[in-house]
Amino acid sequence: MAHLTVSVEYGIHCLLWLVGSGDTALSSRDLAELQGISPSFVAKIFPKLEKAGIVAASEGVRGGYRLARPPEEINFLQIVDAIEGDKPLFDCQEIRSRCAVFGEAPPDWATSGVCGIHKIMLQAEKAMRDELATHTLAEVAASFSRKAPGEFFIEVHDWTSERTGSRKPGRKPKPPA
Amino acid sequence: MAHLTVSVEYGIHCLLWLVGSGDTALSSRDLAELQGISPSFVAKIFPKLEKAGIVAASEGVRGGYRLARPPEEINFLQIVDAIEGDKPLFDCQEIRSRCAVFGEAPPDWATSGVCGIHKIMLQAEKAMRDELATHTLAEVAASFSRKAPGEFFIEVHDWTSERTGSRKPGRKPKPPA
Repeated sequence: MAHLTVSVEYGIHCLLWLVGSGDTALSSRDLAELQGISPSFVAKIFPKLEKAGIVAASEGVRGGYRLARPPEEINFLQIVDAIEGDKPLFDCQEIRSRCAVFGEAPPDWATSGVCGIHKIMLQAEKAMRDELATHTLAEVAASFSRKAPGEFFIEVHDWTSERTGSRKPGRKPKPPA
Repeated sequence: MAHLTVSVEYGIHCLLWLVGSGDTALSSRDLAELQGISPSFVAKIFPKLEKAGIVAASEGVRGGYRLARPPEEINFLQIVDAIEGDKPLFDCQEIRSRCAVFGEAPPDWATSGVCGIHKIMLQAEKAMRDELATHTLAEVAASFSRKAPGEFFIEVHDWTSERTGSRKPGRKPKPPA
């Protein structure tokens, strides 16, 4: 499994739909079906994004998710941390204390501070994280907008309106196509 | 499992012993026992380092591993790549092609070039790799030498000499302590 998992990929793709949906809330099922991915997977990801303050959830017939703040203020590092949690790039096992010549009791000089190898891995992780933090949802959405033809956004708008408009009280959600 | 696994941690710790061992070749068992880690694990890692030209193996009673080039010329990225192989930080599933409005045939504009999300992940991976490439075995060994007292290196030298000196033709290797 890659360090940045498919949950991150699914999450960011779905968040991009929310950039364009404006005031219309989309459910995790709407998002999953629009993106062509597993609804149960998306249903696990979005509560994490809500907890991190990236999306806001509303209840009711027209309920669903919206972005909780402007897409310029949502960066990739925040999304990754929200979805993956505390997941280090390198998980130091502190084997420096196990040198044969130390016997049972490694000396303080050998175990104090951060292991030199771990230190370098932390620097590599920081470089990765710093890069993720420089990219926002707004940036990717803008780049996508330049690429996609105008009619695509109309089609997505129509698809979304049909979905959200068909949600009526007491009526079960439309099953996936 | 962390992206940079325990194999990398074990590999680098063992390589550091080779920085100090000079012309004395150390077997994967010597290295494992000196470091207090699993010999079978080390025996799997070192052939990969040999294949990548980081260590050179010699056969025979005094055989074992030496660094294949000066430690100033062995960086962390080379070691990670040798041990982990081709392991991307993010494994793009190209879900951009699965948008519901595309139907069965996603248009070329949607699938051409690298996905915008993948592109950012590749930049984050490059930042991590660039950082790993700036650090060498020599740097970590020098830092360790400044930290460890002189007698430690004498003890390691004695331990190593006893191990390698006890290897005689027709005699089985000493079992682990």
